[in-house]
Amino acid sequence: MPQHNATEFIKKGEKEYLHHLSIDCVLFGYHDRHLKVLLLKWKDAEKWSLPGGFIRLDENLEQAATRILNERTGLDEIFLQQFQTFGEPGRSYRSKEDVAHLSTITNAAMGPDHWLLKRTVSIGYYAVTEYSKVNPQPDHLSDECTWCEIDAVPRLIFDHNLIFSEALKALRMQIYHQPIGYNLLPEKFTLPEIHDLYETILGKALDRRNFAKKIVSLGLIKKLNERKSIGAHRSPFLYKFDKRRYDKALREGMILAF
Amino acid sequence: MPQHNATEFIKKGEKEYLHHLSIDCVLFGYHDRHLKVLLLKWKDAEKWSLPGGFIRLDENLEQAATRILNERTGLDEIFLQQFQTFGEPGRSYRSKEDVAHLSTITNAAMGPDHWLLKRTVSIGYYAVTEYSKVNPQPDHLSDECTWCEIDAVPRLIFDHNLIFSEALKALRMQIYHQPIGYNLLPEKFTLPEIHDLYETILGKALDRRNFAKKIVSLGLIKKLNERKSIGAHRSPFLYKFDKRRYDKALREGMILAF
Repeated sequence: MPQHNATEFIKKGEKEYLHHLSIDCVLFGYHDRHLKVLLLKWKDAEKWSLPGGFIRLDENLEQAATRILNERTGLDEIFLQQFQTFGEPGRSYRSKEDVAHLSTITNAAMGPDHWLLKRTVSIGYYAVTEYSKVNPQPDHLSDECTWCEIDAVPRLIFDHNLIFSEALKALRMQIYHQPIGYNLLPEKFTLPEIHDLYETILGKALDRRNFAKKIVSLGLIKKLNERKSIGAHRSPFLYKFDKRRYDKALREGMILAF
Repeated sequence: MPQHNATEFIKKGEKEYLHHLSIDCVLFGYHDRHLKVLLLKWKDAEKWSLPGGFIRLDENLEQAATRILNERTGLDEIFLQQFQTFGEPGRSYRSKEDVAHLSTITNAAMGPDHWLLKRTVSIGYYAVTEYSKVNPQPDHLSDECTWCEIDAVPRLIFDHNLIFSEALKALRMQIYHQPIGYNLLPEKFTLPEIHDLYETILGKALDRRNFAKKIVSLGLIKKLNERKSIGAHRSPFLYKFDKRRYDKALREGMILAF
């Protein structure tokens, strides 16, 4: 958000947003065997956070999550899923220094009774995108908006490390029940490519032969009469998603066991 | 809660509870091939709801859920799990008649700006218990506290039918990833008994032979050198849960695919 918006938000948000409630977004990015998470660095401070914000009086939770991710990172058309709500009483405590810092960068005073300093319960949303295809930008409250490898996440503010790790658990659970990959792999892909995707997200090795058998038997992908040339003697078959079955499994769920 | 507590709550709760937030509990009950859900009937009105309530300023979400279920139904020692948060802007709308009714039964006036009439986001919790072992009791706000077959749930207030159906989805998803049955079956049980439990919760037929093979291969149950006599020529082996493996699977998750 531009600075005047951030200032207006601190000054007048009290009447436009639900008190005691926020939303935090965990955006995972996949590309070529790497899984990353999108983090914001606070303006003029060595503090990192997930992109988060508040819910307007008249919008529903999904609308709020989409708007917040857009305002904080510039990203659009990301389908976010709710996964858990975080409500320890002290989770969003801001020190005096933090409050002073926020007042300074927004040029808006915050007294001790300010609505942003009340206990806040946060609703977690997550999504996965192909990070080489998007270009996130920091908002006015942030210096940087950066993809960070999931095993190198720094200390984050509040309970954001917990929110991140619970989102990762939810993502790993999800891939046993919903197809994944449509927006993460090229339109035509090889079995090793989809195998890499699943291994990277699950963070563990999956037997290649067994994986291929299971994923093909679900009917989500179909073999093309076409090969990819990746070396002198290597030209694996290409596959693509069966979009009709993929969408059906998205709606109705499925069971995948490796 | 006793009437004076309900009255105090309407009058003074504004300073003791988080505004804009509530918790609703979906308690499922299993017994002998029946799956039910616990509902409250409003005092002096033909309105049904899930047991719900509000979060004190100093308690966390799990503490609030446990206290609320206890205050509204008398039940204790029920391990509730969070599953989804519900936040459509109009979800908790109370008509003038509803407000007047609530004022009457609590003997406490509620003006149009009363905090309970603000937009409320509700955090859903659920659990499963053995309903023949517990004895729920209605609180002062309710006439009845009743187990209702899951396929005969009446029209509930607010979006409680949605909360119920999403809880059922969450429960059905959970049994593919966490063991279930320790508090729902007798200490020693037959394969048909645990098969019935899974079929009833999933609401679909499961091949008996395949089910037995899968559930035994997970190592969660062990065969005893003991049989149950259930008829002239029928005496199936008894099984019990391997508590160590059961608890490990609870902590770490597992994958069950029929």
